[in-house]
Amino acid sequence: MRDMKQSHLFTKTRKEAPADEQARNAELLIRGGFIHKEMAGVYAFLPLGFRVIEKIKNIIREEMNAVGGQEVYMTTLQPRDIWEKTDRWDDSKVDNWFKTKLKSGEELGVGLTHEEPIVDALSEYVSSYRDLPISIYQIQNKFRNELRAKSGILRGREFIMKDMYSFARTEEEHLKIYEEVAQAYHRVYKRLGIGHITYRTHADGGIFTKKFSHEFQTLSGVGEDTIYLDEEKNIAVNKEIYTDENLAKLGLDKEKLVERRSIEVGNIFPLESKYTDALNVYYTDENGEKKSIISGCYGIGVSRTMGVLAEIFSDDNGLIWPESVAPFQVHLLVLGEDDTIRAEAEKLYTELTEKGIEVLFDDRPDVSAGEKFADADLIGIPYRVVASKRSIADGGYEVKKRTEENGKIVALDELLNLLKANG
Amino acid sequence: MRDMKQSHLFTKTRKEAPADEQARNAELLIRGGFIHKEMAGVYAFLPLGFRVIEKIKNIIREEMNAVGGQEVYMTTLQPRDIWEKTDRWDDSKVDNWFKTKLKSGEELGVGLTHEEPIVDALSEYVSSYRDLPISIYQIQNKFRNELRAKSGILRGREFIMKDMYSFARTEEEHLKIYEEVAQAYHRVYKRLGIGHITYRTHADGGIFTKKFSHEFQTLSGVGEDTIYLDEEKNIAVNKEIYTDENLAKLGLDKEKLVERRSIEVGNIFPLESKYTDALNVYYTDENGEKKSIISGCYGIGVSRTMGVLAEIFSDDNGLIWPESVAPFQVHLLVLGEDDTIRAEAEKLYTELTEKGIEVLFDDRPDVSAGEKFADADLIGIPYRVVASKRSIADGGYEVKKRTEENGKIVALDELLNLLKANG
Repeated sequence: MRDMKQSHLFTKTRKEAPADEQARNAELLIRGGFIHKEMAGVYAFLPLGFRVIEKIKNIIREEMNAVGGQEVYMTTLQPRDIWEKTDRWDDSKVDNWFKTKLKSGEELGVGLTHEEPIVDALSEYVSSYRDLPISIYQIQNKFRNELRAKSGILRGREFIMKDMYSFARTEEEHLKIYEEVAQAYHRVYKRLGIGHITYRTHADGGIFTKKFSHEFQTLSGVGEDTIYLDEEKNIAVNKEIYTDENLAKLGLDKEKLVERRSIEVGNIFPLESKYTDALNVYYTDENGEKKSIISGCYGIGVSRTMGVLAEIFSDDNGLIWPESVAPFQVHLLVLGEDDTIRAEAEKLYTELTEKGIEVLFDDRPDVSAGEKFADADLIGIPYRVVASKRSIADGGYEVKKRTEENGKIVALDELLNLLKANG
Repeated sequence: MRDMKQSHLFTKTRKEAPADEQARNAELLIRGGFIHKEMAGVYAFLPLGFRVIEKIKNIIREEMNAVGGQEVYMTTLQPRDIWEKTDRWDDSKVDNWFKTKLKSGEELGVGLTHEEPIVDALSEYVSSYRDLPISIYQIQNKFRNELRAKSGILRGREFIMKDMYSFARTEEEHLKIYEEVAQAYHRVYKRLGIGHITYRTHADGGIFTKKFSHEFQTLSGVGEDTIYLDEEKNIAVNKEIYTDENLAKLGLDKEKLVERRSIEVGNIFPLESKYTDALNVYYTDENGEKKSIISGCYGIGVSRTMGVLAEIFSDDNGLIWPESVAPFQVHLLVLGEDDTIRAEAEKLYTELTEKGIEVLFDDRPDVSAGEKFADADLIGIPYRVVASKRSIADGGYEVKKRTEENGKIVALDELLNLLKANG
């Protein structure tokens, strides 16, 4: 489905935000027909939203493959035993499991993360130093039984997530992978259009490690997080580790830090050998000695990222998708019911789609120009191209970027060049 | 990840099938490193298996798009209320739900199918005859709490499924879509390499309809189903409706039918207006009259199909993937430790991958020729290309199809032509 006629698209836009929705990202995405709210924190992705999700996934996938990641697809249903080995089964230890039961009465988990099953599967394949290092990733739904869920797709009970897990022989090898993945993350955010406002942020390493973990934080007024940012050095620290001691460790000068609101768009985490040891997966080194495997995990919330983009790239009229993840590149509008004009627009639609340009064609009859313009602004496709009696009389089509105030009339050739140059 | 070195691939093959596995499909797929058994009926897809799944999904996706399907991604977590409206919530009515709970105690379903949420979402978008017909599909995990699960990935507790749902204004319009989708199904099976042994099979319409539903049954000795097949007319009936009355209705002659074992690889089902009526989704026709919406559903088990292909396309030595879904097109093996030969093989690997040919390169050092040949047979990639001292001395590479007994030596140009012609 590279192209689509809007008369055929089953979703419609809405003027009003749903009453039960407080988050701007969900309001806009529901109004545009990108997502459907199944219940609080649980959203389905409709055709426009599905396309955005797939584009975000593909950018992440390309960058994970570029650092040697191997993609797998794990199961949602989780057996109790592997989680007991790491002491993450009991609800008193991990308080946001969804659990279910087999007919035999045996309790199962509904996958909230996948360190345990990935490490457990590895035990069948890894035994020697020759088998390492390895990086494995997955892009799929995760489930967290949150008490409240009010942030739209920024924090869901069911959400789409990329998680990579790395397994190395030594601390040195681990750090090399860790830094490569961090660089891959910067490339992902750059391609998503938020590279310039996304900072690697030092954060607490939690119970696993004395080292810092790292978040990737995108500046945003609606962010739940507070970071302290050194704009010169391009790094930040999370509020929870904002102490004189930590700043000294990191060589940061308190005077130069500015406080900012931000949203976490990714995190990378040294796991030391916590899970591999607990699940009894070791390797034998060149000298026949049994050694611990050093691992790391690397997450990016795919659906959350879509929500972040909706929060950041939007104005009073609607969404403003970056070209890399827009559901279509061009929103072609035909105005009026004139048969000649409609035929011209149909021809242009065919021409663009044959050139591999992704077009949403607003071919709806009996819909006013004003409504079509409002929908185009709400849906937020990068280029709006209008075919009307006036544009044809003026020698072509009116093209306007979603980020621009005014369009201009261009002939077909010029339009094709413009879209090609930006495609 | 178009290409992959086997020294880097984290999975390994196994000589022995796992003791707890009775199904041939799972035995072969586990031995080849395609899948990992999490528990009975619940399998993860490892890199090779993930690639096969993605290829099957893409074939189905292309054919669903070709008949106007719009792809969405529904939620696994399901609210009780919409399922109560169709009387499919209570465990005494639907006996294979997995259920879970919110922290508030509210019970949720773990998506076993998605008619209800799709129809419920439609209520926001469909009201007029102008909004129909529509076809919506999803490819994602479904969950069924089966008492037993012994068929590998043929019948899982968690499995990947494509489901399309159509919504039409009239019975006539519904039938037109129904037949178009049936033809799309034939195209899918043809592309998967099982078109010649897959039959549209009349089956019981169940509680929804007095009409027949239809299954697509692939002939196989391990099939759970029995069909009666008219090879001349190219149609079949399922055992459950094999009565004189039904045969007469279908114009089939009992004398001409042969009994066959088969596996269900798809089903299409007229739903009449059962779900749309129950969820109170109607449309207003040209005359302002409120009318029922006629729907159909159309399923293909994606992971099941992978299992069917493994059952059908395999021999004593392993898997024999059809080219359309093989994890790679070429399995390149380098034999021996000679540096010159290894360099030649590396060069060929680069050349093939640059041409867009998907190559798994068995570059493993210290692995015998016999082991590499055995692994190539087990993994079942369509073309095996060997670079060895002998092949280079003979003027090139030995190429052999997985379906052939003997290979032949070809020069680089000839190899490229051969793979291009078949790619």
